[in-house]
Order: sequence, then C-alpha cells, then structure tokens
Amino acid sequence: MRILVVNCNTSDDVTDAIDSGARAAASAGTEIRTIQPAWGPSSAEGFLESFMTAAAVIDAVSRETAFDAVVMAGYGEHGREGVRQLVEVPVVDVTEASAYLAALVSDRFAVVTTMSSTIPGIRESLHTAGALSRCSAISATETPVLSIHADSPAAVEALAEAAAPLIEAGADSVVLGCAGYAGLDRDLEARLGVPVLDGVASAVAVAEALVKLGKRTSKRGPFAPIDPRKKWIGWSPFPEAAATGVV
Amino acid sequence: MRILVVNCNTSDDVTDAIDSGARAAASAGTEIRTIQPAWGPSSAEGFLESFMTAAAVIDAVSRETAFDAVVMAGYGEHGREGVRQLVEVPVVDVTEASAYLAALVSDRFAVVTTMSSTIPGIRESLHTAGALSRCSAISATETPVLSIHADSPAAVEALAEAAAPLIEAGADSVVLGCAGYAGLDRDLEARLGVPVLDGVASAVAVAEALVKLGKRTSKRGPFAPIDPRKKWIGWSPFPEAAATGVV
Amino acid sequence: MRILVVNCNTSDDVTDAIDSGARAAASAGTEIRTIQPAWGPSSAEGFLESFMTAAAVIDAVSRETAFDAVVMAGYGEHGREGVRQLVEVPVVDVTEASAYLAALVSDRFAVVTTMSSTIPGIRESLHTAGALSRCSAISATETPVLSIHADSPAAVEALAEAAAPLIEAGADSVVLGCAGYAGLDRDLEARLGVPVLDGVASAVAVAEALVKLGKRTSKRGPFAPIDPRKKWIGWSPFPEAAATGVV
Amino acid sequence: MRILVVNCNTSDDVTDAIDSGARAAASAGTEIRTIQPAWGPSSAEGFLESFMTAAAVIDAVSRETAFDAVVMAGYGEHGREGVRQLVEVPVVDVTEASAYLAALVSDRFAVVTTMSSTIPGIRESLHTAGALSRCSAISATETPVLSIHADSPAAVEALAEAAAPLIEAGADSVVLGCAGYAGLDRDLEARLGVPVLDGVASAVAVAEALVKLGKRTSKRGPFAPIDPRKKWIGWSPFPEAAATGVV
Amino acid sequence: MRILVVNCNTSDDVTDAIDSGARAAASAGTEIRTIQPAWGPSSAEGFLESFMTAAAVIDAVSRETAFDAVVMAGYGEHGREGVRQLVEVPVVDVTEASAYLAALVSDRFAVVTTMSSTIPGIRESLHTAGALSRCSAISATETPVLSIHADSPAAVEALAEAAAPLIEAGADSVVLGCAGYAGLDRDLEARLGVPVLDGVASAVAVAEALVKLGKRTSKRGPFAPIDPRKKWIGWSPFPEAAATGVV
Amino acid sequence: MRILVVNCNTSDDVTDAIDSGARAAASAGTEIRTIQPAWGPSSAEGFLESFMTAAAVIDAVSRETAFDAVVMAGYGEHGREGVRQLVEVPVVDVTEASAYLAALVSDRFAVVTTMSSTIPGIRESLHTAGALSRCSAISATETPVLSIHADSPAAVEALAEAAAPLIEAGADSVVLGCAGYAGLDRDLEARLGVPVLDGVASAVAVAEALVKLGKRTSKRGPFAPIDPRKKWIGWSPFPEAAATGVV
Repeated sequence: MRILVVNCNTSDDVTDAIDSGARAAASAGTEIRTIQPAWGPSSAEGFLESFMTAAAVIDAVSRETAFDAVVMAGYGEHGREGVRQLVEVPVVDVTEASAYLAALVSDRFAVVTTMSSTIPGIRESLHTAGALSRCSAISATETPVLSIHADSPAAVEALAEAAAPLIEAGADSVVLGCAGYAGLDRDLEARLGVPVLDGVASAVAVAEALVKLGKRTSKRGPFAPIDPRKKWIGWSPFPEAAATGVV
Repeated sequence: MRILVVNCNTSDDVTDAIDSGARAAASAGTEIRTIQPAWGPSSAEGFLESFMTAAAVIDAVSRETAFDAVVMAGYGEHGREGVRQLVEVPVVDVTEASAYLAALVSDRFAVVTTMSSTIPGIRESLHTAGALSRCSAISATETPVLSIHADSPAAVEALAEAAAPLIEAGADSVVLGCAGYAGLDRDLEARLGVPVLDGVASAVAVAEALVKLGKRTSKRGPFAPIDPRKKWIGWSPFPEAAATGVV
Repeated sequence: MRILVVNCNTSDDVTDAIDSGARAAASAGTEIRTIQPAWGPSSAEGFLESFMTAAAVIDAVSRETAFDAVVMAGYGEHGREGVRQLVEVPVVDVTEASAYLAALVSDRFAVVTTMSSTIPGIRESLHTAGALSRCSAISATETPVLSIHADSPAAVEALAEAAAPLIEAGADSVVLGCAGYAGLDRDLEARLGVPVLDGVASAVAVAEALVKLGKRTSKRGPFAPIDPRKKWIGWSPFPEAAATGVV
Repeated sequence: MRILVVNCNTSDDVTDAIDSGARAAASAGTEIRTIQPAWGPSSAEGFLESFMTAAAVIDAVSRETAFDAVVMAGYGEHGREGVRQLVEVPVVDVTEASAYLAALVSDRFAVVTTMSSTIPGIRESLHTAGALSRCSAISATETPVLSIHADSPAAVEALAEAAAPLIEAGADSVVLGCAGYAGLDRDLEARLGVPVLDGVASAVAVAEALVKLGKRTSKRGPFAPIDPRKKWIGWSPFPEAAATGVV
Repeated sequence: MRILVVNCNTSDDVTDAIDSGARAAASAGTEIRTIQPAWGPSSAEGFLESFMTAAAVIDAVSRETAFDAVVMAGYGEHGREGVRQLVEVPVVDVTEASAYLAALVSDRFAVVTTMSSTIPGIRESLHTAGALSRCSAISATETPVLSIHADSPAAVEALAEAAAPLIEAGADSVVLGCAGYAGLDRDLEARLGVPVLDGVASAVAVAEALVKLGKRTSKRGPFAPIDPRKKWIGWSPFPEAAATGVV
Repeated sequence: MRILVVNCNTSDDVTDAIDSGARAAASAGTEIRTIQPAWGPSSAEGFLESFMTAAAVIDAVSRETAFDAVVMAGYGEHGREGVRQLVEVPVVDVTEASAYLAALVSDRFAVVTTMSSTIPGIRESLHTAGALSRCSAISATETPVLSIHADSPAAVEALAEAAAPLIEAGADSVVLGCAGYAGLDRDLEARLGVPVLDGVASAVAVAEALVKLGKRTSKRGPFAPIDPRKKWIGWSPFPEAAATGVV
C-alpha cells in the first residue's frame, strides 16, 4: 500500500517531521511518500496562508501518480474537498482523522495548536467534519509552527501547559492541532495522563483502514471529477497541463 | 492483536454473519473472537430491546479477558459508553466507525436500516457521535433483522431500493444500518455506484488502527472505572461477582 | 390515580427518600407506589451503572400491574424510552419533568448534581428531551448519591455552594440533578432565592397532569409494543417469561 | 386555586371556547377565570397581530388581581416573557405546555394550525421554549381561527387531513396549534390514533402542577420586576397608572 | 430617499440622539425623519417594556406616510416582523444591520449593552436574524439607557471596560447594543482598536442600500398584508381606524 | 469611492457581466474596477475549482492598489477570509451580502444556482456567514456558468423553474447563486413576485455602506496581517515578491 502524505507548507523540517511520524505509524508493507508543495509559505498560520496552501497542495497532488491514499498533513487547513475531487483514492485529513479517533477513546477532546490566528479555521474545519460537538475547546500555545522542531521538549512543555486547564475544564483527551507536532503524542500523553491524538499518525492509520476495506472517494456527488473540457489558464488539474503548471 | 467483537443480540446466525464479516475485514495477525450475550432478544429493533442488549453486552464483556480492543456490533444500539467505562482498551461501535469512514469518502451519507422503529435510536446515536450533520437521511427497508441472512440477495435488493431515492436526494455514500448486514457492502456498492460502508468491517479496521497507534480509552473523564467499593445486587461489573452474575 | 415511582438504584434509603418526596408532591387521591429494581448498583453515577439500571428498571416495571402512570426517578439515567415501549400509560422521567417546569418559571436553569461522572449522561438526556438549550450549566458537588441522606443539611449546603456561581453567571433557576435530592428543594430555594425544581416532585405533578388529561404513550411510532413473537433468552418483557426472568 | 386564562384575541366566541376547554381540564377546586384583552384583533394570525395581542394581553393581565397562575391561551403568540415579568405566579403558555406534554408521550410531535402565516411565529416560539427539536413539522389547514367554532366537525376534519401526512412522515403525536381548537383533542385522537395535545387543557394542567409544587416565576433574572421609577406615557404596568391606561 | 427612523421608547433625549446619529450616517439626498411612539416607556430594558414598545412602534408607523424605508431603532427589541407586515418598503432593525456589518469586517463580534435584563431578548433577536453564531458574547455595562447622554464620555468609558475582556476572549469587533449609543462608535473604536458598529448608523446605511437596489419587503410569506376584513377593537392597523386608535 | 470587484474565474464574459451589474448598482461617485485572476478556471463549479480560484483571487488582489473596498464576486466560493487578511478595507462577498439583504426583506430565502456540484460549498459558505438558518433551500438549474450569458432569457426561465417549487415550499425571497447571474434579478422578480437578490449588486451596495460608515476590516483577530518575516516560495503576499509571483 502506498500512502502519499502531503505537508501543506514548504518547510523541509516540517516535511521531515511529518515523514518520520507517518513512517512510525505505518504498518509493515505500507510505503510512505511525503511531499511538500513547490510553492507557498513555510508555514500556514491563518486564512491567507491556508488558502494559498490549499491550491499549492492540489497542484502538488495533481503531479503525483501511483498511490492508494492521500494523507493531508495540514491541521485545520483548507483544500481537502478539492483533493477529493482530484483523485479516486481515499483522502484523509489529519484534522478529521484525529478528531474521529479522539471521539472513540474519550468523551470530549481539546485541541492544542500553535497560533491563535489558526483557531477560526480549525473551528470551521471541525464543524464541516461533523466533529465540533465533540471538541470542548481549542487553545493556542502561541508558538510558531517552525519553532516546534528547534526544541521539541519545549514544544511538549508548551502543549502540556496549554492542555492542562482544558482537561481541568472537562476534556478527557487531547488532539495535537498542527501536523508539525507529529511524534510528540507519546511524551505529552505521559505528561497529561489522557489519550493524545497525533494527526499524522491518526490519518495514516485511518487511510490504511480505508484502503484495506477497498473504499474509494465517492464520485457521485460533489467529489465527481471536474469537467475535462473546462478551460484553464496558467494552471490546470489535467496532467498534460500540470506539466506546464502554476510555477 | 485480539479483537473482541460483540453481537448485541442472541441470534447465532447474526453472530455468525458478524464473525465472518469481521474476519474478512481483519488484517493478517488479527485474531477475531465474536461473542453474543448470554441473555436478551434475538434482535434489537427498538428502544426496549436496545436497552436490554446494552446491559447484556456489558455483562458479556465483563466476563471476557485478554483482548486488545472491543467492537460493538449493534448498529444504533445503546451501551458503548458503558463498555468504555468497563475496559481500558479501545471500544469501537459500528455506528461510529461507519459514520466516520463514510464522512471521509463522501460529502453526506445515508443510512439504510431494517425497521423504522430503530430510526430514533440511530439518530440519537449519530448525534452523540457528532456525525449526524453528515447524515442526509435514515431510511428503513422494514425487513426484520433475522430475515437478512435467510435470503441475502433479497436483502441487497431491499437495501438498494431503500437507498436509491436517498442518493437521488443528495447522499453520495451509504451506511449499512444493521450489524446483520455484515458482508453485503460489496454487492450493494456494485448496485449503487457509491461507497457503501459496512459497520462491522469499518469497526474492525478502525479498532486495528487505534491498537496500532497504542491508544486506549481515556480514564480521566466519564469513562473512569467505577468505584470498586460500590455495592451491587444480583450482577456486578467486578470479576468475582460476575461469576455469580445476572444469569 | 396510581403512580408507580421507580427508583433506578437498589438503595433502600434512596427509595425511601424518593417515596417520601413523591407522597409529599402527590394530590389527595393519588396513590404512590415506589419500587426499586431487584438487581443493579446501589447508585448510578456514570454510564455503566446507568445502562445496567436501565435494564433493571425495565425488568422491574415489567413485573408490575395496575398503575396509571410511571415516574422514572433516576436523574439523567437511561431507559425512559424503553419503558415507554413497555407500557401504555404515560412515563415521566424526573430529568424531563424538572427541566420543563424550570423552563416555565425561569429563563435558564442550572443543574446541580452529585458526581461529575454523571454530567455527560445528563447533558445527553437533556438534549434528547429538547431542553438543553434552556440549561445554562451542569455542575457537580462531587458528593456521592448515598451520602445525601446521611446528612441532608450538608447536602443542601453543598448544593448551595455549587449553585451560587451558576446563578451569578446567569441561571435564574436550579434543578436538583439527582432523584436522591428529593425533598431538598424548599430549603435550597430559601437559601438561593430562585425557584428550585425537585425531579421527583416535578415528575409526580406532571404525571398527574397527563393522567387527568387522559393522555397515554403513543403506540404509533418507536414506542409501539415489541413484537410478541420475538424470541428472548433469560429475560423477556412478556409476563409469563418475566416470571422466570433475568434474576 | 385560581387560574387566570387569557385569550389573546378579542373574539367572544374564542374566549368562550377557551373557557370551556379550561374548565373541562381543571381539577375540582380550581377556579377558572377567562378574560380577553380590551383591545386588539379578533384573531391573531401573523406577526403584526401577534405583537399587538402581546401588548393587549400584558395590559389585560396588569388589571387583574388575585390569581395563582396565568395561562396564556394564544398558540405561538408573543408576550409570555413580558407577563412573566409582570407577575410573581407561574405563567404557562399553551405553546410550551402542549409541546412539553407531547414530548413526554411521543417521540416527535407535529403541530397543525390555522393559517400558514402563523408558522414562522410558531417555529420561533417552539425554538425559544427549547422544544423545536421534538417537533417534526408544522402544517396549516388554511382555516381562519374564527371559522373553527362555526363548524367544529369541519375543523376536526380539516385537522385530520392536515395531520395524517405528518404522521405518515414520522410524527407520533399531534399538537393543536391554536387555542381556538380547545376541546377538539378527543375527537381528533379518535380519528388519528395518536395522542393529540390541546394547548389550553395542557396549560391548565401544567399550571395546576406548578401551583401545587409551590413554584413561582424567578425574579432573579430577566423576569425581575421592572423598575417602579420608570416613566411611562399613556400606559403603565403599575396599578394606579393602569387605571388610566392605554384604552 | 426618505427614511423613517423609529425610536422604540418615549424619551425625547434618546430620539434626539438617534436622529443625530441617523443624519450623520445618511447620504446626501437622504431625508431622515425620526419619530417616537405616542405611548410606552421612556426606555425598554427587558421583556415587558420590549413587548409594549413593539405595539407602540407598530402604532406609530401605521400613522406615517410617504417614506422609502423604515429603520427600527430599538436594539434587541421586538416588533420588526410586525412592521414588515405593515409596510411594503424595507424595514431594517438596528440589531440586524449592525450584526451583519460586523460579520463582514470581523470574525466574531461582541455586543455591549446597557442592562443585563436585556440580554435574553438580544440573544433571541440575534438568533432569529441568523447572526448569533457570529456573536462571541453579550455583556452589560449595567448603565440605564437614559443615563447615556447625560454623560457620554462616561458611557464610552463603561463600554470600553465592558468590551475589553470580550476582545481579550476572542471578539474582534464590537456592536453597540442600544440605539441610545448612537454616535459613540468612533470614540470607542479609537479606544479599543477594533471596528465598532453603531446600530443606527448601520441601519441607515443598509436601508439606503436596499432602497437603491429597489428591494421591498416580500409580500408572499408571513409579511403579507393582514386581512383588511379583520375586526379590531380599540386599535387597528388600517388608516381610518388608526385615526381613532389606541391612544 | 473606489470599489475593486473581483470575478473569481478567468472568463471575460463573466467579468463583463459582473462589471455591468456592479456599475448599474453603484452610486454616483463610486468607481467600479472589475478584475479577474491571471490564472485559474473559466468557471468555478465545485470544490477543486473553488480552492484554485481562492488562491488566484488572493494573488490578483495582492497586485492591486488604491481601492476603498473589495467585492468578491464568486457565489459560494472560498477565499474571502484570506482577502480580509490581505487588505485593510472592507471585503464583501456576494454570498454574504445577498443573504443578509434577503434576510431583511423576507422570512426565508431560497438560493438558485448553476450546477448541483456547487451546493455543498454554498451551504458551508452560508453556514460560516451565519445565514444558513435563514435559507430554506438551495437548488440547481444544472446550467453551466458559462452558458448564462449566451442566452439570458433562457437563464431567467431556468431560474424561474428552479425557484418556483422552493417558493411554493415556503421561501419568500430568492437569492441568485452565481455572480454570473448579475443583472437578472429584475426580470426574475417580475416573474416570481418575490424579492430577488443579485449578489453583485447587493455586495456593491453593502460595500458602499461600509465605506461611508468608515468601517475597515478588523486587524485584531484572524484577519491580522500575516507576519512579514514569513518565508514564501514562488508566490508571496508582499508587494515586491508579488511582482515575481505565481504566474
């Protein structure tokens, strides 16, 4: 089984962290290929960056072939429904996968993320996924995405500080609200004593589940392929056009 | 990995169908053990039966040892939160698992079930799971649970007839709303042209995902173990008492 | 008029308190008969206990005859819809009755209960009843159910302490979130200066109202009687079978 | 016990019908006094009329003394929260009472009313009451309020025709969506085979329950009395002023 | 273009403030005519007063002729749907207009109002408008309406103190929750550094937009004119009757 | 006043139609400048196209200077929150503006759009705007965007056919669910007898209102400017970088 994992930003360090997290979560026999867009911001921490990464991720996936599932590794970012229209295999967003798994091992989960500028987008993403009613709170450490891997013990410390009052207030699990936190769930779990869900690991495991079950993205509704006769300028979702695409 | 699959009713035929479905979905190396309660109705098709099976399932699971996850194979039935309090391993209900997977491969799913008397319970179960907003409709074939395996082509036919207008009205995937439908997803998928999610297979795959990720049920909130000093009459969740338990 | 009041747990003391509360609330001419299940926990303070009491209460009610209404005296506990399927007379749950009456004499009510482990079940019960939007908050005294009647002034004190900040935050009435609090509403009302609704008294009064109006449980939808041909093992809702039933 | 029943419109016939319905529902020992406003429309079938009757009803109640509860007999009409601010006794609106009782004897109720122009107001009133989630549909017979008592068998016939498809679609009880339908519940119940809730009878029974329980309207929140120093022109809620009030 | 602005209370000072605010916001060529009801309270700070002003405003508007739009200048007060039934021109409530404009220039707005007794009515008004999901909080300064213009710097100070913690908690704009605050938005904006929406100015601007677009109130649904044959006592929406109307 | 109107697609014909519609709606003294992205699809009729246009529109706006408001002319398309982060002036999306104005002149609006593939995106956009509760239904004519202006009488006919049953079912206004329908509101209004809201005209009028009121996009919350130190590859929101941007 080949899973295409897509970091939404252009930071090599974040891509590496996601790749390591995805490989650690993958079953034997699952091939992980982690990519990043050819253009866009080094991190997505708000609406403008999120919308640019949505397009850049769609662009990046349109150039790939030969995979059995896509994992979208941008917590709370836009674009998943666009990728679902682009491919026939299952597309699993880290936001969705971690929320659903958290809902199975706890009553209500809290999300801890990087910058508070990302919270409205996360809230909307959870709403669309149908999981917002299971989320007790979303809180930010105010630590930029790119600082996470410079000092991961500090990141765990910041996450623990942000999560503790949310647990005190009623959450009984925690979701890591940034793909860049990949791999920090075990340390945080040890600190907090509640299940901690890592989006990248969750999405890889759920993608494997969907592939094993033989499920593919529905092509009957809004994820039906786009009309091949549609005229595009400068970028196109169609292979030949993509070769001369947006960057 | 050992998954304990629990049919909620006392029908051997349904237990067999669930067992086959679970085994077909399980990965190599996963051991499936399918049980049924020692008491209760041959099928659960409404509130009273659902509440009795909830207790009977809790009773049944309390007598089991040595498993890494529980799959609750009663679509829309009560009791999952009780089992979560009883055990430390992940507990995956077919209602939740199939809804979450459907939400990943489609925009909105329709549920097709057996008797319309089960619909209010299903609606509430999806609401609690947080997935009701992704469900476009719930429809009943008015076929009793126990008739499914007497004639499975007829069951597929009835499901296709019930599902078609829901797809016409906007659903782009279908969830099989009875654990007894285990194994019918492929045939129905071929008929309908949209993804069809089988609860038992979905729950086995999701349970495997949780076990691989090392996640366990949160013991910090409402799923904390019950007080061992509590006095019970006639049945008890504690091993020694269970030996002389309710039946 | 004969009202069957059902304590959901097996504590004689709680049954006595409920019985006293019900008799105090009943009109002249109303006969109160208070029962408790033959099996189950001495108090229900979480999901597992709640689901076991649901079955035990259904069992208990199935053995009774000759009553004009049922009052279910387990605040936030499961099972009411099952009893509605079992009988033709009105079934009034203390959770529903106190919420509806509170909504008539105030803008938003707060619930004060025993253990925080009961809160998710209470929230869901109010949601199903349709009354959650009128509830401003649910708070726990962390006092076990069985300690209430050992020292009722202490119970009132604990309730007052739990309720005061909720009133400060906007609630203008209080609902007693445990049937074991029966009879404490007057003292608490005097302390707090807002209406305090006692579930048992509320449910008795509302049950009387329904009986006087000649209303009975609808048998057209999900509360239609269960199929008499259904096969049960070890316990059955049908009289003859119940005689050799679950305990 | 003295219950003040307030028809919201100025039709003597409707007031008579409400009075008969209220008396039929009242317990022995309950005195019913039914009044109507001194001004306003002969029936309220839309927003403008509803807002005028709200003021007229407040005016009417402000002139009354010596009652233990108020029943507001205008289905879906405005004003109940204003009357709650005016008096200290319980105020029970027919919309609320019938919804709550219907929710106790069925899974989902349908409302059948007079003119479709009243539906948005009814929907909002049920939402505010918290009961909209228990309402499956609201349908109009397009029969004006004042024609009901000219020919009550025709009214029952029209109600049965409006209700039948709503029951077919899943409602398992019916609420009479106009106070002028008082007394028609029994005939309609016989026709439809599901519980039919009459707002006036429901409200009288619930008001009796509240009075027996000794509950009064909360004066801690938005129903606190209005400031006696406030200056009014032309009409005033204060007794001495009311004597020279609005009409 | 002629805009009829209707203060809901009978305070000349508030009417003057609203008139100034409306004129300041109006385009060149827009004629503002600000009126107040002939009867009712000097300020509306709760349900009873709100319902009385709803009727008084309908009465006042029914006596006016020759205007192209109505602005209803009573924040969170009842009656707007009634006026929509009375006239054919657009009717813009300050509550709606300010909420919609705030939603366009921010993610979530906070409302700061006068007395906490008005909050439930404001919440309901925003819900009906569809804008409650965009409102993060409603807070009261506990300053009576009539004290605002005695000392407007103090009013700005009180508003700033009430708004600051709401902004800290996540609101990124502020709505002035009383028509009497007309004209204070600029000073408060300077204090708070976020957009501040003044209901009166917002409503005038939105009313101008609707008139320029040639839009009128729909007469197909619940805002269809009331039946001219309806019998009224003491007050009537029809011109000839209004001449001998309620006061 | 200078309003920058942005068609989201790359069709010159649609840009022309939007430009004409915007000019017709603009006040004297308002300068309209209508642009289209340099890249992307000729029409956006689903998720993938919508996400690509979101980025292309952000790119296009980032290259513009000297405007007082932005109108985003892509009904139900993504990106508005990104543009709000990019600029300080008000940003008005046609989806929002038409919904809010419809909510002011009717009880519930229906949306008629082009292809059903756009419906889930429209639903989500209205939800985020807070206006979904005022929308009774969304229906598609299944007419591609680009065919509208080839034959506008046919487009009006198709819209009338799609809208009629929605009005019959309770909508009392109609919103044109595609910016390409600009200018067709008058003809459709004449056909249907209910207010018809044109997104482009609505957004221009609302943008003018915001500019006149001196309101600007909040920079305190999620629309705060992006960090100028952030590293971008291939495209950047910063002027110097944009000059060598994505296409």
